[in-house]
Amino acid sequence: MKEQNQKKTGLVHVYTGNGKGKTTAALGLALRAAGSNMRTYIGQFLKGRQYGELESIKQLSPLITIEQYGLNAWVHVDKANPNQKAAAREGLIKATEAILSEKYDLVILDEINITLFFGVLPEQEILDLLDIKPDSVELVLTGRNAPQSLIDRADLVTEMKEIKHPFTQGIQARQGIEF
Amino acid sequence: MKEQNQKKTGLVHVYTGNGKGKTTAALGLALRAAGSNMRTYIGQFLKGRQYGELESIKQLSPLITIEQYGLNAWVHVDKANPNQKAAAREGLIKATEAILSEKYDLVILDEINITLFFGVLPEQEILDLLDIKPDSVELVLTGRNAPQSLIDRADLVTEMKEIKHPFTQGIQARQGIEF
Repeated sequence: MKEQNQKKTGLVHVYTGNGKGKTTAALGLALRAAGSNMRTYIGQFLKGRQYGELESIKQLSPLITIEQYGLNAWVHVDKANPNQKAAAREGLIKATEAILSEKYDLVILDEINITLFFGVLPEQEILDLLDIKPDSVELVLTGRNAPQSLIDRADLVTEMKEIKHPFTQGIQARQGIEF
Repeated sequence: MKEQNQKKTGLVHVYTGNGKGKTTAALGLALRAAGSNMRTYIGQFLKGRQYGELESIKQLSPLITIEQYGLNAWVHVDKANPNQKAAAREGLIKATEAILSEKYDLVILDEINITLFFGVLPEQEILDLLDIKPDSVELVLTGRNAPQSLIDRADLVTEMKEIKHPFTQGIQARQGIEF
């Protein structure tokens, strides 16, 4: 954080906004990192159903590890649901272990911003996690409605802004493209 | 284009804006598509140097094909440079062949928006290409400054908006993360 004019490792990225491309960009980062022989850990909060990306990511292993912390079905985000809260909490423990293990060059916490926005996980715990993150780890946080404290703390923030989306025209999500 | 309430193939996506994540999201789409056994062709306009993503994409072949249409070095976009214009033109021919071949479910034309913005390729030719695109092909166009005509014509448009970027803080591009 001090040497502004040097090559620096371990940035914090935030991909937020209401447009398509946040999780997808994180997957692209994992693919690019693997191309440079870097190891990636992806933890997906809230997601539990089968996503197309998991299949091809398996082919890239052992460089990419992926775990889903969500319940079996995609459910409404609800901090009052004790199962959801427990699942997110367990996910955060696993994610913290992955970050601190220094086994990974890139750690992606997918949809974590939403868990903060809805109060499923407390914002301060994530900020604390950023403080203890080893400098060797590049950390990527995705999901809509990233809290301002996270934006302030991150090194790189992109807002994916929906200009036009086919779902609003009645087209449904398709395997291989949206999930 | 007619059946608005049915599962529909062959959308046109545009990823534009000044933020990080456009090419990266396109790579993530290719990874996700491969996970569903779909074939992807990626044509990269303007890019000619070695990008980390190429290495890992090779591991996913034969589902993902990638070609770079750029000159050997990253150069300033300049429509007055005849070599650059010829390279982009040749790229467009290859891309058109890929789209019309129906060998690919997903075709990504990376950085093509910039070639339009700088007049290296004429906008109308791309619009014509969209008109003859087979419905089976999902087409993704990336790059800053997408022309309004393309935004109007696309089904899905996301603007990647830079909120904060480390390069503006003097940090340089790093292999495996930015390229």
